[in-house]
Amino acid sequence: MINITLPDGSIRQYESGITPMGIALSISEGLARNVLSALVNGNQVETTTEITTDATVQLLTWNDEMGKKAFWHSSAHLLAQAILAYYPNAKLTIGPAIENGFYYDVDFEGEAFTDKDFEKIEKKMLENAQKKSEFKLYPVSKADALKEYADNEFKLELIENLEDGQITFCSHDDFTDLCRGGHLPHTGFVKAAKILNAAGAYWRGDEKNKQLVRVYGITFPKQKDLTEYLELLEEAKKRDHRKLGKELGIFAFSEKVGQGLPLWLPKGAALRKKLENFLSKAQQQAGYEMVITPHIGHKDLYITSGHYQKYGADSFQPIHTPNEGEEFLLKPMNCPHHCEIYKTSQWSYRDLPKRYAEFGTVYRYEQSGELHGLTRVRGFTQDDAHIFCTPDQLLEEFKKVIDLVMLVFNTLGFDNFVAQVSLRDPENTEKYIGSDENWEKAESAIIKAAEEKGLPTVVEYGEAAFYGPKLDFMVKDALGRKWQLGTIQVDYNLPERFELSYIGADNQAHTPVMIHRAPFGSMERFVAILLEHTGGNFPLWLTPDVFTILPISEKYQEYGEKVSKFLENHDIRGLIDNRNEKTGKKIRDAELKKIPYMLIVGEKEAENGSVSVRKHGEGDLGEMSLESFKDLILKEIEIN
Amino acid sequence: MINITLPDGSIRQYESGITPMGIALSISEGLARNVLSALVNGNQVETTTEITTDATVQLLTWNDEMGKKAFWHSSAHLLAQAILAYYPNAKLTIGPAIENGFYYDVDFEGEAFTDKDFEKIEKKMLENAQKKSEFKLYPVSKADALKEYADNEFKLELIENLEDGQITFCSHDDFTDLCRGGHLPHTGFVKAAKILNAAGAYWRGDEKNKQLVRVYGITFPKQKDLTEYLELLEEAKKRDHRKLGKELGIFAFSEKVGQGLPLWLPKGAALRKKLENFLSKAQQQAGYEMVITPHIGHKDLYITSGHYQKYGADSFQPIHTPNEGEEFLLKPMNCPHHCEIYKTSQWSYRDLPKRYAEFGTVYRYEQSGELHGLTRVRGFTQDDAHIFCTPDQLLEEFKKVIDLVMLVFNTLGFDNFVAQVSLRDPENTEKYIGSDENWEKAESAIIKAAEEKGLPTVVEYGEAAFYGPKLDFMVKDALGRKWQLGTIQVDYNLPERFELSYIGADNQAHTPVMIHRAPFGSMERFVAILLEHTGGNFPLWLTPDVFTILPISEKYQEYGEKVSKFLENHDIRGLIDNRNEKTGKKIRDAELKKIPYMLIVGEKEAENGSVSVRKHGEGDLGEMSLESFKDLILKEIEIN
Repeated sequence: MINITLPDGSIRQYESGITPMGIALSISEGLARNVLSALVNGNQVETTTEITTDATVQLLTWNDEMGKKAFWHSSAHLLAQAILAYYPNAKLTIGPAIENGFYYDVDFEGEAFTDKDFEKIEKKMLENAQKKSEFKLYPVSKADALKEYADNEFKLELIENLEDGQITFCSHDDFTDLCRGGHLPHTGFVKAAKILNAAGAYWRGDEKNKQLVRVYGITFPKQKDLTEYLELLEEAKKRDHRKLGKELGIFAFSEKVGQGLPLWLPKGAALRKKLENFLSKAQQQAGYEMVITPHIGHKDLYITSGHYQKYGADSFQPIHTPNEGEEFLLKPMNCPHHCEIYKTSQWSYRDLPKRYAEFGTVYRYEQSGELHGLTRVRGFTQDDAHIFCTPDQLLEEFKKVIDLVMLVFNTLGFDNFVAQVSLRDPENTEKYIGSDENWEKAESAIIKAAEEKGLPTVVEYGEAAFYGPKLDFMVKDALGRKWQLGTIQVDYNLPERFELSYIGADNQAHTPVMIHRAPFGSMERFVAILLEHTGGNFPLWLTPDVFTILPISEKYQEYGEKVSKFLENHDIRGLIDNRNEKTGKKIRDAELKKIPYMLIVGEKEAENGSVSVRKHGEGDLGEMSLESFKDLILKEIEIN
Repeated sequence: MINITLPDGSIRQYESGITPMGIALSISEGLARNVLSALVNGNQVETTTEITTDATVQLLTWNDEMGKKAFWHSSAHLLAQAILAYYPNAKLTIGPAIENGFYYDVDFEGEAFTDKDFEKIEKKMLENAQKKSEFKLYPVSKADALKEYADNEFKLELIENLEDGQITFCSHDDFTDLCRGGHLPHTGFVKAAKILNAAGAYWRGDEKNKQLVRVYGITFPKQKDLTEYLELLEEAKKRDHRKLGKELGIFAFSEKVGQGLPLWLPKGAALRKKLENFLSKAQQQAGYEMVITPHIGHKDLYITSGHYQKYGADSFQPIHTPNEGEEFLLKPMNCPHHCEIYKTSQWSYRDLPKRYAEFGTVYRYEQSGELHGLTRVRGFTQDDAHIFCTPDQLLEEFKKVIDLVMLVFNTLGFDNFVAQVSLRDPENTEKYIGSDENWEKAESAIIKAAEEKGLPTVVEYGEAAFYGPKLDFMVKDALGRKWQLGTIQVDYNLPERFELSYIGADNQAHTPVMIHRAPFGSMERFVAILLEHTGGNFPLWLTPDVFTILPISEKYQEYGEKVSKFLENHDIRGLIDNRNEKTGKKIRDAELKKIPYMLIVGEKEAENGSVSVRKHGEGDLGEMSLESFKDLILKEIEIN
């Protein structure tokens, strides 16, 4: 008999050789029907794998990330099987599960594989799935494996790198593949399949190698799930910040200025300004002081901070002066500059904390292939701040920073998030700098602060930076996609490297602790996520143009100007569309630009001192006085 | 007989051989007493120079810049004479007049010349001046000149480079010097003299040459003028923005960040922010749109703009990427980026003008020796904007920009200014790009705009940029010193180089005109000038800390907090001085920091809900209710 520990901590006894499916059946038939895979002592196995020693076992269903992984990994086998049915000469290479679905890299040996082929593959996959074939994993000797794949140079290369005795194949139906395991009980779980895309990909990601076709697919246990997923994809496409950013005039790129260097267009700059003003005000109330520092720094600055030694070779290269032999670097972060500001004065413990904030633009080199809209750029502006405090102040300061991050998330409608507490690896404390005492203080401060603030948290050991523990905020957007926003980091390293100090109550010099924090993360990334989260329908207080006035003919343009002036006097800004176009056309254009309110003005309105109001996405709200419309807007802004 | 035209346009007849002094005497004896020098056909001559042909003549007095120049040039002779009296072996080199006074570069042949020697030199100069010796200019052959200076290698080098027949000497009293002329009638005009400084200077400014001593002096026609000047110097020293900037916590430099790269400290960043917000608001009302662009640009961008070809070699050198072979430059100006923003859309003449504004930080390499506080830096933020308009809109736009500049000057108290209209050199129109028609349009637009706005102007031919005419604002600060602030430039060049266009009413593509403008010039330079202009006593709306609360003991700190909160709720910000110091000491410190209001709080004030107010530089204003103090401040801010 062996002891099996389940996730709820309960321990059950089974005969040696019990399988995960056997355990599921012993609990309930319903569970057994839903089990897709299992973790035994943390390793993913087949549901048929025999367990012969005491172990912890987690049964995985569709609701588990690892359950989905088994589902999609198994589906990659179905995809490969279907491809071989139509392209018997195709050479298979690798086919992993990914975050959403799976892919298989295939050498079609010159045969065409295009969008038109997707449907027949999908059909064949489902046809085979219905056979409910079991996945059977079995060991193969290296010699046999090499013989089996004699005419597939890709698999041969993979096998060559495996150790004899560690090689397994997996068969289902008429199909066999080199495989490490982690499958569904049988193919019958797969009820819906979609080939999403086929794109070129080099073998092993190296452009010197042969170009293969990467076939992307996704599968689901229900047709309804697939339908929902495709709708989500469609919605995500509509909300792509690169598309919306262009339509709404938020940002642009110019080849002449350079890839990955965003130009903020008027609407985008206005939006960003509002976000910055909102945070600035909150920071002022929280005792921060704004500073401004240059975008370059002497190479020595980054030698002191250690950045040059660590990242110099992969960064934008040094800027030389025409004479005097100086070398500068584009600043990749603001902290060294803020350390130098701290050093312009002598501080006592009574002066601390010092909280220096800056919307600091930094530059980091990224390969052009890695660039993506505003989420991966070469220049971006951090809503950065550095807090210099005594170790005793750390908990209180950390809690205040959490308050600020929460204010940002609540105000911008990111309600769904988890805070990840990243701590030292307790097995490898020598990887980290700073005394055990300081680490314990800092880690317990973070844990306590998160607890006292009631944050939903996950703890990750070994995820701390080498200079200190941190708290990262992972938000889910309106489409359920995860983004990392906001970070708070404790740092014992830089204050030492920069020889920062304060005079303590004991009249001795001490080294302060430093907190790095950025609630938005970067203005570029945050605006990109906000665009995708809101689909461009920003909360009213962030909207660059709250209204557009649509005079029904040239005769009423003057009244339109009057309306605009009135609203502007109440700090409500918008546009006037005086184009010589039909009102219907003007309304359609305003809807496309997602302008929240359309104010139609003609004879009646001019006479009554009113506007006829149309709300974006909702339609006609009827005629109202200027006063009423103004109140409506001010109230809506207040609420948000 | 010859015709002499005077500055008022009148023509007088004189016998050939008349001298400027003769002309002065013919007008009035009073004038003759005050004449220091003269311009004949624009060339400075002696008052004794004979005029033998028709000519225009301008008589120069102490009120003319060129009159002062003759005064100080002559004084340099007196200085040299006095030096030789005490240092007979000293070798003279050159001794020109400068903006304020004059200097003489002297090789003392190893003898010491220090501050202690200044007084005896001053005395000797005045003693010699009292002799009223005439300055006599006379020609000398090159051979004789070389012989005269046989043992002075510096003068020999000067003479070698002169043409025989063009060489003159000037004698007064017992002293003779190689000289081109432009002297006072006699030495008696010099009634006050001061040696200001003696500093090392290389012969001809080349550090490979021998080091000489540059002796700086200044002289005046009245002792009172000298006294006033020395007071001004003393005041300027107190107001030096580098000194005030440190005392008031406005900015700092760090060797590690790099020379000439200012760090804006909290007080400075707050001040700058207020200036930026003030201008932003005015710009929004004037129809500008804010944009934000990166601080680097691809090298191609500056090849297109022509900046790379023109300034590349003397600038910060290109930034290379670790791979992909790209080259970027720190942006030396914002215009190319704004041109690229203009190009992100198609524009019709109905969309123009487009007015893109940005507080854009730019980087320009300066030799370290040229750097000076915030007025000469390597990185600075321009309050930049570029207006793209049709040629027909130019006049109207130019007038609007003048309005904006006037708003800035009036609000900041720069009432004393002249606008310099810089036009093409009419004799050399081929030096400039663009059609005659466009130039005439642009020049007449500037002239007309300045006229219609009633600006005090001076016109300078040949001072236009090669790409268009401009209007520069020269202000005088509280100490009467001149600064160039604010510029408006018309540009036909960049729109062509960037192939910008708009569709005109004729349905054809046209090239827009561009206006560059910056009312402040740069935030760094402006804040420096504002510091020196106000001596750090900023108008209240710009003051980082309006008040400091001084609790008379620890017991009243809580009430102090209450007062601070109350004022903060009315957007009035300040400090609390809770240090364990005597109130007298706290007041002295607050005076030093130039904090406008000190609010003393003790038992009486806590009971009455009041504050006892002391105003910086004025003293006790007595006890007043919080409400009254708040009203006082809000009213003062309103007025400013």
